[in-house]
Amino acid sequence: MSVGAIAASAQRLRDAWTAGAALGIWSSLPDLSVAELLAGLPYDYVCVDLQHGVATFSELPGMTQAMRAAGGAPVVRVPWNEQAGIWRALDSGAAGVLVPMVNDGAEAAAAVAACRFPPAGNRSWGPMWGYVRPDGALPPAEQDASAICLVMIETAAGVDALDEIVRTPGLDGVYVGPNDLALACGYGRRTYRDDAGLEALIQRVVDACRGAGIAAGLHCSDPQMAREWAARGATMLTIAQDTGLLADGARQALAVARGEAAAPEGARPY
Amino acid sequence: MSVGAIAASAQRLRDAWTAGAALGIWSSLPDLSVAELLAGLPYDYVCVDLQHGVATFSELPGMTQAMRAAGGAPVVRVPWNEQAGIWRALDSGAAGVLVPMVNDGAEAAAAVAACRFPPAGNRSWGPMWGYVRPDGALPPAEQDASAICLVMIETAAGVDALDEIVRTPGLDGVYVGPNDLALACGYGRRTYRDDAGLEALIQRVVDACRGAGIAAGLHCSDPQMAREWAARGATMLTIAQDTGLLADGARQALAVARGEAAAPEGARPY
Amino acid sequence: MSVGAIAASAQRLRDAWTAGAALGIWSSLPDLSVAELLAGLPYDYVCVDLQHGVATFSELPGMTQAMRAAGGAPVVRVPWNEQAGIWRALDSGAAGVLVPMVNDGAEAAAAVAACRFPPAGNRSWGPMWGYVRPDGALPPAEQDASAICLVMIETAAGVDALDEIVRTPGLDGVYVGPNDLALACGYGRRTYRDDAGLEALIQRVVDACRGAGIAAGLHCSDPQMAREWAARGATMLTIAQDTGLLADGARQALAVARGEAAAPEGARPY
Amino acid sequence: MSVGAIAASAQRLRDAWTAGAALGIWSSLPDLSVAELLAGLPYDYVCVDLQHGVATFSELPGMTQAMRAAGGAPVVRVPWNEQAGIWRALDSGAAGVLVPMVNDGAEAAAAVAACRFPPAGNRSWGPMWGYVRPDGALPPAEQDASAICLVMIETAAGVDALDEIVRTPGLDGVYVGPNDLALACGYGRRTYRDDAGLEALIQRVVDACRGAGIAAGLHCSDPQMAREWAARGATMLTIAQDTGLLADGARQALAVARGEAAAPEGARPY
Amino acid sequence: MSVGAIAASAQRLRDAWTAGAALGIWSSLPDLSVAELLAGLPYDYVCVDLQHGVATFSELPGMTQAMRAAGGAPVVRVPWNEQAGIWRALDSGAAGVLVPMVNDGAEAAAAVAACRFPPAGNRSWGPMWGYVRPDGALPPAEQDASAICLVMIETAAGVDALDEIVRTPGLDGVYVGPNDLALACGYGRRTYRDDAGLEALIQRVVDACRGAGIAAGLHCSDPQMAREWAARGATMLTIAQDTGLLADGARQALAVARGEAAAPEGARPY
Amino acid sequence: MSVGAIAASAQRLRDAWTAGAALGIWSSLPDLSVAELLAGLPYDYVCVDLQHGVATFSELPGMTQAMRAAGGAPVVRVPWNEQAGIWRALDSGAAGVLVPMVNDGAEAAAAVAACRFPPAGNRSWGPMWGYVRPDGALPPAEQDASAICLVMIETAAGVDALDEIVRTPGLDGVYVGPNDLALACGYGRRTYRDDAGLEALIQRVVDACRGAGIAAGLHCSDPQMAREWAARGATMLTIAQDTGLLADGARQALAVARGEAAAPEGARPY
Repeated sequence: MSVGAIAASAQRLRDAWTAGAALGIWSSLPDLSVAELLAGLPYDYVCVDLQHGVATFSELPGMTQAMRAAGGAPVVRVPWNEQAGIWRALDSGAAGVLVPMVNDGAEAAAAVAACRFPPAGNRSWGPMWGYVRPDGALPPAEQDASAICLVMIETAAGVDALDEIVRTPGLDGVYVGPNDLALACGYGRRTYRDDAGLEALIQRVVDACRGAGIAAGLHCSDPQMAREWAARGATMLTIAQDTGLLADGARQALAVARGEAAAPEGARPY
Repeated sequence: MSVGAIAASAQRLRDAWTAGAALGIWSSLPDLSVAELLAGLPYDYVCVDLQHGVATFSELPGMTQAMRAAGGAPVVRVPWNEQAGIWRALDSGAAGVLVPMVNDGAEAAAAVAACRFPPAGNRSWGPMWGYVRPDGALPPAEQDASAICLVMIETAAGVDALDEIVRTPGLDGVYVGPNDLALACGYGRRTYRDDAGLEALIQRVVDACRGAGIAAGLHCSDPQMAREWAARGATMLTIAQDTGLLADGARQALAVARGEAAAPEGARPY
Repeated sequence: MSVGAIAASAQRLRDAWTAGAALGIWSSLPDLSVAELLAGLPYDYVCVDLQHGVATFSELPGMTQAMRAAGGAPVVRVPWNEQAGIWRALDSGAAGVLVPMVNDGAEAAAAVAACRFPPAGNRSWGPMWGYVRPDGALPPAEQDASAICLVMIETAAGVDALDEIVRTPGLDGVYVGPNDLALACGYGRRTYRDDAGLEALIQRVVDACRGAGIAAGLHCSDPQMAREWAARGATMLTIAQDTGLLADGARQALAVARGEAAAPEGARPY
Repeated sequence: MSVGAIAASAQRLRDAWTAGAALGIWSSLPDLSVAELLAGLPYDYVCVDLQHGVATFSELPGMTQAMRAAGGAPVVRVPWNEQAGIWRALDSGAAGVLVPMVNDGAEAAAAVAACRFPPAGNRSWGPMWGYVRPDGALPPAEQDASAICLVMIETAAGVDALDEIVRTPGLDGVYVGPNDLALACGYGRRTYRDDAGLEALIQRVVDACRGAGIAAGLHCSDPQMAREWAARGATMLTIAQDTGLLADGARQALAVARGEAAAPEGARPY
Repeated sequence: MSVGAIAASAQRLRDAWTAGAALGIWSSLPDLSVAELLAGLPYDYVCVDLQHGVATFSELPGMTQAMRAAGGAPVVRVPWNEQAGIWRALDSGAAGVLVPMVNDGAEAAAAVAACRFPPAGNRSWGPMWGYVRPDGALPPAEQDASAICLVMIETAAGVDALDEIVRTPGLDGVYVGPNDLALACGYGRRTYRDDAGLEALIQRVVDACRGAGIAAGLHCSDPQMAREWAARGATMLTIAQDTGLLADGARQALAVARGEAAAPEGARPY
Repeated sequence: MSVGAIAASAQRLRDAWTAGAALGIWSSLPDLSVAELLAGLPYDYVCVDLQHGVATFSELPGMTQAMRAAGGAPVVRVPWNEQAGIWRALDSGAAGVLVPMVNDGAEAAAAVAACRFPPAGNRSWGPMWGYVRPDGALPPAEQDASAICLVMIETAAGVDALDEIVRTPGLDGVYVGPNDLALACGYGRRTYRDDAGLEALIQRVVDACRGAGIAAGLHCSDPQMAREWAARGATMLTIAQDTGLLADGARQALAVARGEAAAPEGARPY
């Protein structure tokens, strides 16, 4: 992998959300073959989930290596808004981080600071990584320029502080977790399709991001949802998740084999 | 998991192929979450592939535990026709084994013998497993009765010895690997859909199994292929494989999100 | 494993402490075979120790799978009173959590909140787990109702706040770590058998729990200690720990083999 | 660990069986803490079981390191009588190997040859290990002199070839696996306590070893069995196994806690 | 390994910095063979880096076992100044901890407190470790006396609080991370060789440590730097790092093989 | 990584030995960071050693992914001349295999056959790998054309069959393991520098390879040895090994820090 390949993955995501809507896939499985497979698909980004996925920081370096084998680098959802964890995600080869449960501008600023070396922030320098991959030895300012910092709005406090959060200097975007947002704001397990209030709330976040000139990210349950929200202004849409694809695909195959469903159009010829 | 649960998985597969066609799924990924997910699906069997899959004997015991968590036990394709490997697969909690590259009746008989304790065969007794799961302490004859032994015909020699192999005492079935069979018999990468000779060859194996009263297994590239061959007499059909499901599903999601394909019927509502 | 099996493990523990004294075993080893073995024993609960045990969050999901293979789910002692860790323990298949070093009512309330989804608490929803095991897709309120939250009193501040802690709404019980409690309260490495003050202190916690209608848990060094404290009102007693059992059993076997001790009554016949 | 520590473990075992009866413990769990714990106990040997244990060659080097931390080195039961596996066991830090299912003198001689460098045998030299632990750089003749080679008699053919096997030049001893021996020789799951024929058969192996001046090893189900057979001439007796100790100890603790059994004599005071 | 071996490693480091300058090596790779190799070298200390190294707490216990196999125990750089992490490092067999990013006396005191059991501090007692290695069962005061606590000054705030930090009761030393210090204090990626201000700053920390009678530690980029700073009063100098040694050595070998460099003096004869 | 990248690594090695002498590095450590580091160095090949290295087939797929991250693919020394192992090495992403202990032409031909799909050989097709990396889906003939097959001559029988082995159709080269060759042919631990007979023997192998038009490989203890043998006709020379580099480099650093050696020329400036 050439020097700058992690930065190239970050740039690919930035370009996609500038050009329209970046489409991404969610990685919950700490499996190296899955990692290479996902990173080799024509998605605009892969997000490794260290909050609700099975992987922890222990498996992350191997997963990013497997992804680099396919020419890409993931965004990493860290489990919590903590400096040490954000540093480790970037050390481990992330193109950027996605920070959950951000409640106000100060928390958003802390997330951004952890992604930048001094003087811009407080990231700590680990010389070891430059021996393993050349990207790890790039000058601090270059690494700062490439590392993407996204925060999640998914609590009531985060919604209240929306305008403050989207204006955080250096922040690259806001990402909505609609499951937690709905629970936190009193919508329970309802979805935007069931509830106009929730729909409006998501729209409000999207619009605020657009207004602030940052990426408007949305976690989607299915690709159809992504189509709808791309049309409504969202610019970064996760449309699939590894265990979901496996389970849905396996059930669909069974339906086809049993004659309960037609073979999907465009299915692989034998 | 109650005592006898591994035997119950074996029985479920036997029942399915007696009743008609057992439908199975192929496990190539040594990931514990994938293992539990696959074993919880309404398939008649899961096959863990230690020959071409990523998993080795090192990961197998954990994978079968994850599968027992969902109430099932896999068939295990061992990497080679060796006693020690077949013993370890059964020790590790397999409901049965699938033995590749069997060339004649003697090799088939050796595979069967490795699945049975003396006096029926030569399987070695490992007291340790009875402490971990009660099934491991069942009497030898009960374990013998449940363990499924399947062999693969996928070489030219195996085809020549077909009639001998299917009549091996104690053998539960024969499984065709069409990729290797085609390569080995001079059909290259063609499939039965392209070549009547290959089609007839597969049919010949299926018919020989039916004639001998044993399971007629076939590795299918897609569920549509399984439908066709169930109609032609095959009784054990693998219709999907984990990495294939992931890759195909992820590409399909992208097509839907981009508006290049319709959302699949019966897709998960948000 | 049927839907609701994790809840069933939680219920089994609740039933046991209501009926009298729940007897539990402590898991310090991150080994999958040990996990299945322990969960298959007729104990009322198994507790996986992520604070002083060898396991970390990285190994926990596999350990709970191995335990589900035996039909059970553990209580997990998290390393610290942190939301992200408590969420991950529950995501990973714990029937409940045991939170160390709780010093006052606010900290106890924070532990409880992390075990409940909004509006009851702040737990975050991870859709991924519902694909791996059906329990992960149960409605938030059902998951809230089953997840057990226990906190440890083992600091001087915790003792001072005892009455406040035991009245924390939603708290299921308090668990005493007598080693740390003794050190923290000036008793050094003495035990309740050596020191009436320490004995009275433990009794005070037990009585406060009983008064508040919650479980009174106690970590015991040996099963004889458990008998004594069950008689004094404790309702949840850990009586054995994996490495201790191994070391003690191995030394005892040596004594028997050398003729220095009688074979234990009820020993396994050859 | 000083140079020669692996040889010292081998010598400790040789000394014990010369002086009378060596008492050993069986390691089935691929857990590093268990490995250090077992190696630190006052046993004459630990045997890591790669045939029926959970561990494979992948985990062995870490396990022997953990054992070296306690000052010892294990005997390793290899899964099969193969050069490459025996070489790897010794490379990985074994003090010796235990080779299962040896059927005649030629197989025994092959096992011995794999334990010795040319000209004495065919062991291959791996310079890498001398960097990791100084023992790995000792001259071939020194490594040859220390490495213990034991073979198992547990098949009918092995019994028939008993006299030939025990006279194999360079062989250090024969070890009886009574479970497999009973199955293979038609005694089913009966034990020497149930069946005089089986008792006589074991005695015959012990006597043949004594006559040939090599160690007479026996796998025992409990320490009482070891006492009996030490009196009958066996010189190497495995008296306990890790998962068995855990399961038995945990059940015993429950019995004590429930008042169904007395606390064991010599139990750990609180 | 005899009881007290971890303490002996700690004492070896204390003796070395008292006698002059302790020379150490940095471990970034979570590999068990590398761990044993490093611990067997004639360095005064090995430091396992959990902040910027690849290893996490999950791999640490195995790494310290591998190091105990060579007779040593590491200092562990924890990822953050947190009680639970410091406790786990010591539980896992560290001879001491190195705590990054300490900003003032209160933070330094918190680090020290986490290394001592009550009443001296707040460390929690884990009985499990005493079964695995005898050192884990030593009395609290003995463990307190041996555990080394070092803190890092590498932020602007830390520099400002230098005098306060070095006088923290119980603190064993201060360690300078020159990369982060330079970034944090406005020197960018310059080194003390390029910039007299940075040189003076490092000297100031060294002098303050000497004045307070504690160890003056410095992370060096090469052994030549260590020579210079030992002469200027530093007493604990890390002179090499595992991935750096590998990369530099491999490039040097290539240069020799290509005739671009002379074979190093003292190179290993064939 | 683009399609064909594994083939490109194979081609790079073929080109290097055609152009003159290929220089390689030996990988014994199953560590993913080391794998990426080694593959990123300007060597002509990396060889992963599954015979005497710590890695097994379980770790190989992850190691080749880490190497693909740096743009390369290793040659893999398999532990033994077995079809299943050679297939797995190629499945796992090897650019070629190095087969130890080949004794005659038939064994060499078996090694070659295992590297080729029918009709050229007997390699088995694993569709799974094509999903993980595009190279795995290339047509059989393309994969055949790229996979390198090298065999080792290191036994007395192998030396006797030298002329037969080097003329094996499809064989890419012969590699000499001088340690085993010396032991096997009665030279003990002497080297070619000590013994003219051994020197002549190595030269004979090199000359036979040159005569047959295949690569003449030699395992070297140091880069100086490589220079000598490149001049004598060897075309593939391993000049360094990971644990050796670490140990030698660490000792050298200590010598520099202690003033016992000069800093190496060209050393990294601070």
